[in-house]
Amino acid sequence: MSELRIIAIPGMAEIRRGDEIAVHIADAALANGTPLLDGDCIVVTQKIVSKAEGRLVRLDETDVAAKHALVRSESVRIIRQRGDLIISETTHGFICANAGIDLSNVDDGYAALLPIDSDRSAHYIRNALRARYNVECAIIVSDTFGRPWRQGLTDVAIGVSGIGAIVDLRDTPDAVGRTLHVTEVAIADEIASAAELVMGKASGIPAAIVRGLDQSWFRESSARELVRPATDDLFR
Amino acid sequence: MSELRIIAIPGMAEIRRGDEIAVHIADAALANGTPLLDGDCIVVTQKIVSKAEGRLVRLDETDVAAKHALVRSESVRIIRQRGDLIISETTHGFICANAGIDLSNVDDGYAALLPIDSDRSAHYIRNALRARYNVECAIIVSDTFGRPWRQGLTDVAIGVSGIGAIVDLRDTPDAVGRTLHVTEVAIADEIASAAELVMGKASGIPAAIVRGLDQSWFRESSARELVRPATDDLFR
Repeated sequence: MSELRIIAIPGMAEIRRGDEIAVHIADAALANGTPLLDGDCIVVTQKIVSKAEGRLVRLDETDVAAKHALVRSESVRIIRQRGDLIISETTHGFICANAGIDLSNVDDGYAALLPIDSDRSAHYIRNALRARYNVECAIIVSDTFGRPWRQGLTDVAIGVSGIGAIVDLRDTPDAVGRTLHVTEVAIADEIASAAELVMGKASGIPAAIVRGLDQSWFRESSARELVRPATDDLFR
Repeated sequence: MSELRIIAIPGMAEIRRGDEIAVHIADAALANGTPLLDGDCIVVTQKIVSKAEGRLVRLDETDVAAKHALVRSESVRIIRQRGDLIISETTHGFICANAGIDLSNVDDGYAALLPIDSDRSAHYIRNALRARYNVECAIIVSDTFGRPWRQGLTDVAIGVSGIGAIVDLRDTPDAVGRTLHVTEVAIADEIASAAELVMGKASGIPAAIVRGLDQSWFRESSARELVRPATDDLFR
């Protein structure tokens, strides 16, 4: 593998509750002259998945008490709180700001909650692409998270289907024949980050094709692989 | 911008102290049929930068005391320690395992330390490409870090030249005309992650071309932009 293509999928209509994301993606990709191919990995932002799944709730964003109540209802544990910001563990095990609840690119007066089961969301889109278009793609549902120590947000995977969340290169001989100690690479997060580079927050492109990935990475998987058990974690 | 190409640069010779990385990269890219172009961003792994800069030290990796002493000498602060693992803040402000000291893809009995000033390393390569090949590229020096909460390693930027480490999309109207609150995207980290997908830990490809990035992101910058000030950080 020597080249990867990251292809934005512009031109998708606004996604509404009950919409088939697979259809929107496949049709827009075709209209753009880049039809989906077997072995592609499609990155889909959480926002449109949440919209299609009806995960929008009314929220007056100036009502801090209501916002905090909503964050708590989507969390199993508060990790840190400072001022308006809550870092919590979601029901999925993700640790992020405000339980992943998002106000941007949503109609005024509404907030988008994370999908209830984002692996299942990814799986659903993958199955729909196979059933309707006879194309075998992996799906990553992405979201934009902050992280400790480093400024700036990056996109990560919150749901995966058909591709490993992590590739384990431990104990593979490296280029000088020495044994690598720990190289579990979070490829699903890296793919989500790569896709973000062509989607852009302000441009509202909600999906991208990642073409040319190592096909040995394609397998059944779960974003749960990316969740570090609390007992292994030095920072909570 | 609708498509990004991530092009591996295989075929580079083993880098030794004093080697001109710019020459190795440009020559290998040309030999591969993908010569460097103005507006490319070249991602270069820390390992070869450290080698070119002579940042290899003798280390018997079975000697835990010597390893810890070396980690401490490369750190300004120990953040956490558990067993053999030290999470520390390096002299650059990065928080990572073992001060970024690396044993893989280095000759037996040696360890590679981080470059002393990885922005300067990036700047040096950029200037050499301009001077020798008349090509204007941005440079990112990448390294592989773990992170709290999430399993698996991802590549991040530890040095940048000619491209913003962070793009600030705060207060840009989003796709539905609403004001975005905080969307500072760590594009240099995302670009490093994207490049990692074609380099692969075990295949020993130490550089990749990222072609098609938004040219408005190209500016003078520093990986220091990615370092969150301790006072803003809830997790140390």
